[in-house]
Amino acid sequence: MKEDRYSPGLEGIIAAETRISFLDTEHEEIVIRGYNLLELIRKVSYEAVVGLLLDEKLPDGSRQRELSQAMVQAPVPAPVYDILRKLPASMHAMDRLRTAVSALAGFDPEANSTSPESERLRAPRMIGQIAQIVANLTHIAEGREPQGFFPEYSFSENFLRAIVRRDVSAPEVRAFEQSLIAYVEHELPNSTFAARVVASTLSDAYGALTSAVASLKGPLHGGANEAVMYMLLEAKDVSGLDQLIRRKLSQKERIMGFGHRVYMRRMDPRAQLLKEVLHELISARGEGQVYADMCQRGEDIMRTEKGLYPNLDYYAAPVYYLLGIPIELYTPIFFAARSAGLLAHIIEQHRENRLYRPRVLYTGPRGLSI
Amino acid sequence: MKEDRYSPGLEGIIAAETRISFLDTEHEEIVIRGYNLLELIRKVSYEAVVGLLLDEKLPDGSRQRELSQAMVQAPVPAPVYDILRKLPASMHAMDRLRTAVSALAGFDPEANSTSPESERLRAPRMIGQIAQIVANLTHIAEGREPQGFFPEYSFSENFLRAIVRRDVSAPEVRAFEQSLIAYVEHELPNSTFAARVVASTLSDAYGALTSAVASLKGPLHGGANEAVMYMLLEAKDVSGLDQLIRRKLSQKERIMGFGHRVYMRRMDPRAQLLKEVLHELISARGEGQVYADMCQRGEDIMRTEKGLYPNLDYYAAPVYYLLGIPIELYTPIFFAARSAGLLAHIIEQHRENRLYRPRVLYTGPRGLSI
Repeated sequence: MKEDRYSPGLEGIIAAETRISFLDTEHEEIVIRGYNLLELIRKVSYEAVVGLLLDEKLPDGSRQRELSQAMVQAPVPAPVYDILRKLPASMHAMDRLRTAVSALAGFDPEANSTSPESERLRAPRMIGQIAQIVANLTHIAEGREPQGFFPEYSFSENFLRAIVRRDVSAPEVRAFEQSLIAYVEHELPNSTFAARVVASTLSDAYGALTSAVASLKGPLHGGANEAVMYMLLEAKDVSGLDQLIRRKLSQKERIMGFGHRVYMRRMDPRAQLLKEVLHELISARGEGQVYADMCQRGEDIMRTEKGLYPNLDYYAAPVYYLLGIPIELYTPIFFAARSAGLLAHIIEQHRENRLYRPRVLYTGPRGLSI
Repeated sequence: MKEDRYSPGLEGIIAAETRISFLDTEHEEIVIRGYNLLELIRKVSYEAVVGLLLDEKLPDGSRQRELSQAMVQAPVPAPVYDILRKLPASMHAMDRLRTAVSALAGFDPEANSTSPESERLRAPRMIGQIAQIVANLTHIAEGREPQGFFPEYSFSENFLRAIVRRDVSAPEVRAFEQSLIAYVEHELPNSTFAARVVASTLSDAYGALTSAVASLKGPLHGGANEAVMYMLLEAKDVSGLDQLIRRKLSQKERIMGFGHRVYMRRMDPRAQLLKEVLHELISARGEGQVYADMCQRGEDIMRTEKGLYPNLDYYAAPVYYLLGIPIELYTPIFFAARSAGLLAHIIEQHRENRLYRPRVLYTGPRGLSI
């Protein structure tokens, strides 16, 4: 065992070879199948990025229509909604989502197939079903009937309309879509790693996705976007946030939405872009300037006091709030957006599989006898 | 990135510091909190091992009674069984179990707590509820009412009775209990690793356990015990098995139940013990010798032809078959038994947490532009 290396949290350990994405911290670039993620957010649709992730190239018009149809025309099986109705409304939204994603497997005749081609073909339908489940989580918990997607709208418009259940403007849809692309794929965070670990036993895509929901729920991972919004609402205005953050800092409490294991000394490029999206949304709607001002103050304090920069969750939170999205759905939406990246990783893992089975450093007792 | 090390499947990488267990391959010993697992299997009850895992010491009589009561007196909430009824009977048993374990969180008021002490206090109840869910999976799928546990029987007797729904003999209960202890804990296999990865985001125990179910389903992991039994049933007798294995070997097919990433050149010590359990069960019941003979022939061929030795699943399969347990429950039982070890790992992870976040070796394209 002498030559084994122990790195807590696997920091600095390479755990997968991948052609999907890479955080190039040296050049401050998030690379997605060769493209800069920021260029994708600015220029293409969410469906196009799904195609890029699944096919390893940007889709042409016909492939994009095919993906779009598959993503909006697969209804969620009624028993999955029945199962959600059996769960208490007080159950954490991510736990309800985890249960529904797990249950979805029962209604896919190819659920147990780990053939990469079968998974690639089923992926767009799964992404669409997961988005519909997410959109209906709060509605079902509050006793309303679920609402599906409609073929006349894009995936992003369908997703937003099913959540907010009102007409939505083009700038609102575009802001929401840009957040989905920002969340779509990000190398090997805990949830993606968990999905690949599970997939490596040749377990199926639903199991791997269920594990990613479980991982993303954690406050050290996806839960941060909700925590940011609760902080902004508690603070109410700029001076309130100033006081709140300074008090938390003096009590050595963690401020959510700042810092990232991989981005140490700079701002998450996705946060910079979502900050622009927030400003565009505020000027399109003519309201919400207080959230931009609060976020700026928080950013300034944290940079000066701690040398920490905002991450994506910090600016996604006020965007979702201005769109009228229930706060409990912020992390489920992160998962729905990420499901495309996760499926690309599951397919890649199944294409060239090696079982994950590391070892331990045992520090307990030895030689005890009964 | 130069200094980063890449080891596919994290082979040879130490991924956790633990006081729970260790596979000492040099001395062929499975160490559980200082004790040799084989001694635990031979001498103590399953409840005692649960206490050892949770409390870091073997329980005295009063603590053992407390654990036993908690494990047999917590009923499964009725909506969890309702949810199982909503799932198609054709759905993989591990997928139904995964959904039920996920749903169970909704009925635990402390489900979101990641306090190690809260988790330690709730663990015995969770282990008992999981065993009841497992025992009723097939009954519910076949339209029968679920049956709970009774305070007058031990955990192992309750578990076996709820599965087979008949009176069971003392040698049967002891054989079943020994298999549960053999499965209870085994260092850092994929499912335990998956649970710790998920727990490291400070996600909760139900999410981590759900991920372990997803992992164990995989044919490279827990699914092996069921595959072994199907092979024995297909072969029918010793000469049939001889032909079947030789044909599979000549077609370069994998034979399930042999080999293990960590035990390379010797027999899994647990397999040796379960082989003894199988022989004892056969002599107590006066039937089933054909399965022992087939297993011996398979073991001989694989040692001679491939230099491979049986693992635990190889001998657990015929033990469960002789007990009259439905084959689809073999892997769920593995999970139910392992839930105690998994909970010990989740508690340990939450006690001294470090987020798992490894990196990748990116081999895809760079510099593409839209």
